[in-house]
Amino acid sequence: MAEKFISERNLKFLLYELNDTESLLRYPRYADHSREVFDMILDTAMRMGKDLFKPLFEEMDRKAPEYVKGEVKVHPRVRDIMRQAGEGGWIASTFPYDLGGQQLPFTIGVFLPTAIFGAANYSAAVYHGLTHGAAGLIVSYGSQEMKDTYLPKMIAGEWQGTMALTEPQAGSSLTDLTTTATPTEEGYYKIRGQKLFISAGDHDGADNIIHLALVRIKDAPPGIKGISLFIIPKKRIKEDGSLESNDVNCAGIYHKLGYRGAPITQLAFGENDDCRGWLVGEANKGLAYMFQMMNGARIDVGLAAACISSAAYYASLEYARERPQGRKLTSKDPLSPQVPIIEHADVRRMLLFQKSIVEGSLALLVQCGLYEDLEHVTEGEERENYNLLLELLTPVAKSYPAEMGILSCSQGLQILGGYGFCEEFPLEQLYRDVRIHPIHEGTTGIQGMDLLGRKMMMKKGKAAQLYLAEVRKAIREAQDDMQLKPFADQLQSAVAQLEKVTAHLFGIAAKEGPEMFLADATLYLEFFGIIAIAWQWLRQAVCAGKALQKNPGESDVNFYNGKMVACRYFYGYELPKIEGLAIRLLSGDGLTVTMKNEYFED
Amino acid sequence: MAEKFISERNLKFLLYELNDTESLLRYPRYADHSREVFDMILDTAMRMGKDLFKPLFEEMDRKAPEYVKGEVKVHPRVRDIMRQAGEGGWIASTFPYDLGGQQLPFTIGVFLPTAIFGAANYSAAVYHGLTHGAAGLIVSYGSQEMKDTYLPKMIAGEWQGTMALTEPQAGSSLTDLTTTATPTEEGYYKIRGQKLFISAGDHDGADNIIHLALVRIKDAPPGIKGISLFIIPKKRIKEDGSLESNDVNCAGIYHKLGYRGAPITQLAFGENDDCRGWLVGEANKGLAYMFQMMNGARIDVGLAAACISSAAYYASLEYARERPQGRKLTSKDPLSPQVPIIEHADVRRMLLFQKSIVEGSLALLVQCGLYEDLEHVTEGEERENYNLLLELLTPVAKSYPAEMGILSCSQGLQILGGYGFCEEFPLEQLYRDVRIHPIHEGTTGIQGMDLLGRKMMMKKGKAAQLYLAEVRKAIREAQDDMQLKPFADQLQSAVAQLEKVTAHLFGIAAKEGPEMFLADATLYLEFFGIIAIAWQWLRQAVCAGKALQKNPGESDVNFYNGKMVACRYFYGYELPKIEGLAIRLLSGDGLTVTMKNEYFED
Repeated sequence: MAEKFISERNLKFLLYELNDTESLLRYPRYADHSREVFDMILDTAMRMGKDLFKPLFEEMDRKAPEYVKGEVKVHPRVRDIMRQAGEGGWIASTFPYDLGGQQLPFTIGVFLPTAIFGAANYSAAVYHGLTHGAAGLIVSYGSQEMKDTYLPKMIAGEWQGTMALTEPQAGSSLTDLTTTATPTEEGYYKIRGQKLFISAGDHDGADNIIHLALVRIKDAPPGIKGISLFIIPKKRIKEDGSLESNDVNCAGIYHKLGYRGAPITQLAFGENDDCRGWLVGEANKGLAYMFQMMNGARIDVGLAAACISSAAYYASLEYARERPQGRKLTSKDPLSPQVPIIEHADVRRMLLFQKSIVEGSLALLVQCGLYEDLEHVTEGEERENYNLLLELLTPVAKSYPAEMGILSCSQGLQILGGYGFCEEFPLEQLYRDVRIHPIHEGTTGIQGMDLLGRKMMMKKGKAAQLYLAEVRKAIREAQDDMQLKPFADQLQSAVAQLEKVTAHLFGIAAKEGPEMFLADATLYLEFFGIIAIAWQWLRQAVCAGKALQKNPGESDVNFYNGKMVACRYFYGYELPKIEGLAIRLLSGDGLTVTMKNEYFED
Repeated sequence: MAEKFISERNLKFLLYELNDTESLLRYPRYADHSREVFDMILDTAMRMGKDLFKPLFEEMDRKAPEYVKGEVKVHPRVRDIMRQAGEGGWIASTFPYDLGGQQLPFTIGVFLPTAIFGAANYSAAVYHGLTHGAAGLIVSYGSQEMKDTYLPKMIAGEWQGTMALTEPQAGSSLTDLTTTATPTEEGYYKIRGQKLFISAGDHDGADNIIHLALVRIKDAPPGIKGISLFIIPKKRIKEDGSLESNDVNCAGIYHKLGYRGAPITQLAFGENDDCRGWLVGEANKGLAYMFQMMNGARIDVGLAAACISSAAYYASLEYARERPQGRKLTSKDPLSPQVPIIEHADVRRMLLFQKSIVEGSLALLVQCGLYEDLEHVTEGEERENYNLLLELLTPVAKSYPAEMGILSCSQGLQILGGYGFCEEFPLEQLYRDVRIHPIHEGTTGIQGMDLLGRKMMMKKGKAAQLYLAEVRKAIREAQDDMQLKPFADQLQSAVAQLEKVTAHLFGIAAKEGPEMFLADATLYLEFFGIIAIAWQWLRQAVCAGKALQKNPGESDVNFYNGKMVACRYFYGYELPKIEGLAIRLLSGDGLTVTMKNEYFED
């Protein structure tokens, strides 16, 4: 079993060399922290990843949660993981001091542990990660009483938090939610309805489950304008602090392809008309509130996908170094010793593919993390700008790592040949685990429509303009470096393609309406994503090139040269993929809009 | 659970409309048969697929083979399936009458059942399929005694046949095989060695296992020139017909991602120095003999991948028709009823992707099947030409369906959203099952080197010239049809790209040697494969266009229009992918050859 699952060296590069995460320290919110604190957090997370999460990677998959007599039994170590996450301060990492938090930047307090724990054992990292997200909604929008009631136990890892959106008749279509809240004179609401696919929606590793649920108040307006956010605990808290049933019942769990260590549940609220929920914030504003958690969850999904791909990369790299097979094509002597397969160009190509996806995705995700942090500490237009950049890039940072993670883990599996297909090696599990990510928290199709139909258009295209300015900044920097100038020019031409394609599609929107406009939004997302990762690779190459000029030590020389070859790989093999996509996007004939469904019949 | 797994209508289209399979009947070898016989075989295979194979699809996955005290226990119905395959004549379908066969063309006797049974339940179809391949080697190269001894029981489905190549130190590198045969004065050889990853290498559904194994005779020349083909039975046949142990022991089975219904075994030969093997044909010619079975197996792999993708396509099509979710983008009323997701352009795009991969791959595979049949009944240069076409297209027909099958099943899974990730629907299993195909019978990397390094060069490029002539013929036909002319022109330009890229790479071969030449052979294979499928889609569109002019009935109108839109899809969305690949292949800088392995370190 491969030991390494993520590169600490690379994380430091992303945080302190490629980006100036330390600059956050100058804002009052983070003023108590220091580089030393950040490094300590990184070290601690790496140690926990290695010692707590990774050893359970296979076991939590093989001993998946079971549904027994209405109860969900998870791996016995889940309780311990939740408590350690609580005690270590990981659940409240970004919350303000006065709510028991550590007031850390997102980039340090969430990005690092999510990446590291997720690379070590994604399923195990989901429990407290979801609790952080759910508690975050209470921090942002809950009443003082809610904060007092729920946060301490959630932050301690004793109570599980969830986000409960999906219903049987409403998966991607939140407008069709029907779970209903009926007001009572006691202040609470009576809840009735069903939720599906709720991650960690019930399990015996926590003493209570706190659902942050989207619910329609009786007689609310139809559609998304009538959706409210509720807290619905599995067990109600009595005056004396003891717990009693709140008529939330788990009707079953799903048996899944991967991500098996965490239970995905079906829940029934109020089957006995005794389920109470408490309105968070104002009525009918639930979707807007939920998007705080949802946006965070989308970044987390991209991060998890990149980090599962990271574990796959290191596992296949280790195998490629150790497995002798075949000879160099220039060696014809069958009696000469076989070479490790890393000597074969095609294997190196596959490894570079993995490396470029993993490290390119992580760079984009750190970029998003920093935008989020800066949004929280800046004011006025500056704040709005960071918000716009984050909004624009969220669908990309969610989907590129998720979609490419499938291919990246698949290439990793391929490097191991027959062994990759077998349970004796971790690749097959990583390949199964990563497949959830283009689905949950909004499918890739939804992200494509979000990017092209909403984000590119919002504030008259201001987000897009801010983004392109960032990309052009990177291009200018790279153009000063003779070695990187060809890549800078290639990216410049890609940006011109992006503008041309976007203008073409906006023209279709104006002339032919939303269906024709968005028919190939998924391809647009792919096209946009490749260019965004190329941007991050150029930034990395500029940074590595400068570092190489400073005569670093041998290990750093290899590290920086690794960045240079991965950038060359990306510009040689990945960026050209935009050509085919541009052809399609510029010549769309509305085939998928106009064809008849009967043509699928035969 | 979706009922449909393959389209009988489409199979008939491929056999009788797109291609003139009936023309085989004019050759003496097939003269006893008729269109009615072919149709009966198709009907019977469809019925068996539906009634025998499909009902066990999930069960054979969930109750995977177990290794218990040195024995492999498979699903109890395997024995029945093997016997029914034997009784139905499926194992000996293509063998000559005098050996108990039905002398059917490959296209009818192997393609149809492999496709249909494979789409219904790939694991279950492997047992007798392998037996057909192994028995075929005995038919072609075995002595009369071998034929008498082994064929009747294998053809009856009582004994399992295998191909045993891989060893612990020799996966893709057959030159490094070390299993050894030592001659004895009794005529047999003593065998000693280990084989890995042997499909159906041991199980209790057959009374004996007949291994067709590659073995090195003691003191044979090193490398592939010293490899011989042996029959090594699990149990030796005594004079009285009873069986005794032949010291072939199963050391274990692999636990796999998918394809779980068939056991993949580790075998030890001669641990007690009592394993006997019999040389097939001449010494040291084993690899050439084995390539008969291997080439057939490669086509079978492509076929299996296309057919697993077919099952995925119909399962997601059924779901897309039935699942209401969301509304047309032009409908803003949240109280209007939801529409089935097939109404969404992005879902139709995913379905067209699946359809174009499945039916494009099947068309190429039928083409290969016909070349194989024609090779067997023609003479002289005509025969050589069919052989060259088949040789050239085999790596493509193996790899395109296998690699694209992963993406196709993944898109199918995506259409189902969260349900696609769950075991309650067949997509997740199909997604697991299909993943084996780019690995076994020669990885995609091996196929790429085979295509570019061997097949494109053999006979001074004659195979490539023959192939391009076939493609040009299709282009000319399509250019006569105004509707199809744009596609014909697009394919003509793709062929020009193919020639340019090929010439460029041959130039590199001459100037820079094999490593630089073959560094991106896998990309060349992908590039070549897309164009080959485009060729088959143009042929299908020409054929469908002509049929539409004859005022067919409503169901046929939909069928042929389905072909037209899938062709449009392929030319709009898939064929443009060659642009990015061409850029890479024309500008290869040898990155993967020249980079240092240390750069992966960090």
